[in-house]
Amino acid sequence: MTMTPSKLAMVPFVSVDNMMKLVHSIGLEQFLRDLATEIEADFLRWELFDKTPRVGSHSAVGVIELMPTSDGELYGFKYVNGHPKNMKEGLQTVTAFGLLADVYSGYPVLLSEMTMLTALRTAATSAVATKHLAAKGADTMAMIGNGAQSEFQCLAQKAVNGITNIRLYDIDMAATKKCAANLAGHGLNVTMCTTPEEAIEGAQVITTATADKDMATILTDNMVGAGVHINAIGGDCPGKTELHRDIVSRSTVFVEYPPQTRIEGEIQQMDPDHPVVELWEVMSGKANGRTSAAEITLFDGVGFAIEDFSALRYVHNKIKDTAFYDDLDFVADPDDPRDLFGMLQRAKD
Amino acid sequence: MTMTPSKLAMVPFVSVDNMMKLVHSIGLEQFLRDLATEIEADFLRWELFDKTPRVGSHSAVGVIELMPTSDGELYGFKYVNGHPKNMKEGLQTVTAFGLLADVYSGYPVLLSEMTMLTALRTAATSAVATKHLAAKGADTMAMIGNGAQSEFQCLAQKAVNGITNIRLYDIDMAATKKCAANLAGHGLNVTMCTTPEEAIEGAQVITTATADKDMATILTDNMVGAGVHINAIGGDCPGKTELHRDIVSRSTVFVEYPPQTRIEGEIQQMDPDHPVVELWEVMSGKANGRTSAAEITLFDGVGFAIEDFSALRYVHNKIKDTAFYDDLDFVADPDDPRDLFGMLQRAKD
Repeated sequence: MTMTPSKLAMVPFVSVDNMMKLVHSIGLEQFLRDLATEIEADFLRWELFDKTPRVGSHSAVGVIELMPTSDGELYGFKYVNGHPKNMKEGLQTVTAFGLLADVYSGYPVLLSEMTMLTALRTAATSAVATKHLAAKGADTMAMIGNGAQSEFQCLAQKAVNGITNIRLYDIDMAATKKCAANLAGHGLNVTMCTTPEEAIEGAQVITTATADKDMATILTDNMVGAGVHINAIGGDCPGKTELHRDIVSRSTVFVEYPPQTRIEGEIQQMDPDHPVVELWEVMSGKANGRTSAAEITLFDGVGFAIEDFSALRYVHNKIKDTAFYDDLDFVADPDDPRDLFGMLQRAKD
Repeated sequence: MTMTPSKLAMVPFVSVDNMMKLVHSIGLEQFLRDLATEIEADFLRWELFDKTPRVGSHSAVGVIELMPTSDGELYGFKYVNGHPKNMKEGLQTVTAFGLLADVYSGYPVLLSEMTMLTALRTAATSAVATKHLAAKGADTMAMIGNGAQSEFQCLAQKAVNGITNIRLYDIDMAATKKCAANLAGHGLNVTMCTTPEEAIEGAQVITTATADKDMATILTDNMVGAGVHINAIGGDCPGKTELHRDIVSRSTVFVEYPPQTRIEGEIQQMDPDHPVVELWEVMSGKANGRTSAAEITLFDGVGFAIEDFSALRYVHNKIKDTAFYDDLDFVADPDDPRDLFGMLQRAKD
């Protein structure tokens, strides 16, 4: 006999296909702007969140992580892997899914794909950091690393900050060509560059999103001029960095959550007490952002659970009254809560 | 346009309904025996697992926890809540789901309901502990607490250890009647008792599975006679115990994973260095189990991630070539892994 599950037993699930449909129904740039707004709103109530560094399980080829947080009403977590070797095998370096639950009952209220959503929220977070840290009037960005994250970064910068000149560089020109082709028709002036030096010419913003798992130095010190804002997105696990430490030394470093960034970010190269500023403090006026035109600001982004929470809450709100989810029979919820066994037994009849 | 996801993008999902169908297709007692076998097999390779205490997010009314582990080939985690107040509101105290992933790629390979599966694996774990610790020839169990977990405990003891006499007690006789009614027709001699003293008469095994979130003492010292084996299952979070500390003092205490049990188990009442024996060491011959007929053995069970891992792996194997799962479009997996954005863009066309 097939049981009819109770209403609370059903949890809305947003598949990859439905996530893409949701994005297009809202519009990609609007979706990125909305995500930026949600992330900013949560950064402004940063102190209210239950925060913990992610819980990682490391192997020789990658890491699988759980990233939980809670604002006291909703609980969210993301499952995410990081396997740099996957790309060569035709797989995603990063895949993810996430869940929201009601803190009061502990019952899940949303399950969602987050491979796509993570790419969107990561780009929105960079745009938020850039908004608060880059020189006023910045209109040109160098995009170093033209892999799966690159187009999202470029479009979020356009949607949130009006950056319309994009200079692409990747060690693999095929990636650059892929990125440029994808960005065509999105209202951006895209230049394909053959060296990182060429890419950063005239750029007030430099974003690095590379995926090699070693202490790489995509940018060296002599390449970075005064006044630039850098988003270093790709160095996001122990042993993986993108910038030479001399650049980090010359920069004012802004981070999401110091206990996590000191392990995973560019600052893992520095002393354990290397000075950092928390991005939420800049946004809430508790700390300075950029203080001079010549200052180099560095957002050492590693991705934090609260950004995923913001994105999941946004999706949870946006799918209401749409067809962009499926109800999953997810929670065993018998009429008499003490009668789980009776529920099982009746399923046999 | 609706995309056709790649094979790797699809993750089998076992709903509550399908889990119940799977259980009945195998047979409930056989399923419990199989789970016990899987759990024993993993306890015998205990040292190989990546172990960590669960990661909890506590609120005034409950806790939401993530329980990850890995054997180096498969990674598994469970989401589980514990909300003792839920029962009065018509909800499950514990709901759960779990995931298995391939360590090499980081891609998920199974998503499953675990509210039902947790009840089954918890019962199988108690039966395994009883098998290794109770007096030989034990055939009578007192079941204290006749809530959602009780029938599973009774049937696992029958399936694994041949215990056929069950003596039920709950502070709420309605729960006892529900449990007795559910156990009818399962080949057990069931006695409903009105006091805990009556329930433990002649029982060589006492299992407590109560859900009140305070330092309760369901059993007091004078009630527990020599030679008894106790499974204390319900005391599984900080501030929640079931036994008077004098009983714990008189017992030899067996645990799953000491760093977790010292926080959550009955031994949270004791000194931080109160001696305990790890169950896996008994099973592998590295430590003694019961050493005399008069000894009181206490399995201070709180539930550990490896038991969930065993259960998920079992389900993953058993659903092959069945109809007891649905494929979810779970992972965004474009043909060119660097072209996540192109995948999103093509979904618009």
